[in-house]
Amino acid sequence: MKLSTYFRSSAAYRTRIAFNLKRIPYEPDFVHLLRHGGEQHGAVYRAKNPAALVPTLERDDGTRLTQSLAIIEYLDETYPDPPLLPRDPWERARVRAFALAIACDIHPLNNLRVLRQLKRALGQEQAAIDDWYRHWITIGLPPLEAMLAGDGPFCFGTTPTLADICLVPQMANARRYGCPLDAFPRLIRAEAAAADVPAFQRAAPEHQPDAG
Amino acid sequence: MKLSTYFRSSAAYRTRIAFNLKRIPYEPDFVHLLRHGGEQHGAVYRAKNPAALVPTLERDDGTRLTQSLAIIEYLDETYPDPPLLPRDPWERARVRAFALAIACDIHPLNNLRVLRQLKRALGQEQAAIDDWYRHWITIGLPPLEAMLAGDGPFCFGTTPTLADICLVPQMANARRYGCPLDAFPRLIRAEAAAADVPAFQRAAPEHQPDAG
Repeated sequence: MKLSTYFRSSAAYRTRIAFNLKRIPYEPDFVHLLRHGGEQHGAVYRAKNPAALVPTLERDDGTRLTQSLAIIEYLDETYPDPPLLPRDPWERARVRAFALAIACDIHPLNNLRVLRQLKRALGQEQAAIDDWYRHWITIGLPPLEAMLAGDGPFCFGTTPTLADICLVPQMANARRYGCPLDAFPRLIRAEAAAADVPAFQRAAPEHQPDAG
Repeated sequence: MKLSTYFRSSAAYRTRIAFNLKRIPYEPDFVHLLRHGGEQHGAVYRAKNPAALVPTLERDDGTRLTQSLAIIEYLDETYPDPPLLPRDPWERARVRAFALAIACDIHPLNNLRVLRQLKRALGQEQAAIDDWYRHWITIGLPPLEAMLAGDGPFCFGTTPTLADICLVPQMANARRYGCPLDAFPRLIRAEAAAADVPAFQRAAPEHQPDAG
């Protein structure tokens, strides 16, 4: 399988973690979101993904799939070991709700194309854009902390799930923008647990061949 | 089960459709997002949902679940008939990708709290905010149209799925803001198919007791 990825994309980062946890090899297709006016906007990539977003999964038969969470659930259903969701429907739902609270309520508002829209269409200065970025993290992290009630060390138990896969890139963004994290001990514990797992380490932006 | 809902919330609308398709009764808990400074920000609702967003599902034992897509997948796993996702993993993934392309790439950017942030924090005029709203629909609908390749009449076949559940509220928003829709015949066909289904009709904002 081929995976279109950009080292700093949180959505691509999630899928890289899932591939690594499942020990599924993939051929990376590097799409640089900043160079050449954004390679995601070029005709070659738009033919693969009309939304001009990463990641895109391409199977050996040429069929393609977008949306990081759809890709990860597909991997989880077709390569069940290790599972990325609990078996119990309610527990699965809690993990999904945590993942979606990042993927729907924080990340879309801080996406590159959104920050560009603030700048180009609304004429905002960088300081106001940075405040916008931090605002959605500042109001988005407390609900996440409240959703983690168990003993850890991962978000939902002793093994990583879809929740940890979404949390780690989001925490990296929070740190990159200097958001205070002292109020989120459970999130920090889960982040630290993931940091010890090679599948997470190898997926990190700074370890990607296209980093820089 | 109890469902916290607001008639015009797209996310709550999705869950209402799912409940109706499954023929699961629910007790509505109306949370008015505009009155009293926004009831979602009150202590009562924040105790249920710290993110101050609708919907929230509350089970009879008092346990709660947030995030519309997590709620719908939970309903689908616990009340399998009629199914809201195909059986085949790849087909399931395509339906999920379509749903997420709405739930992650369009809807979060047009949420009430985001429009308010544009106004209050960034001092934007209503015309610029309306342009912002239409912008994400304008760039968001073409990828959706491209994802629908089958014969219909629904998004993915002859019965409604999670894709239709997400599409219908999004199309309603597009129409409310006067976005041109001529270029999206497949989306319009799926929307029309859903309009004939009582479960969709009864979930519509204008038919909710809290409408107005």
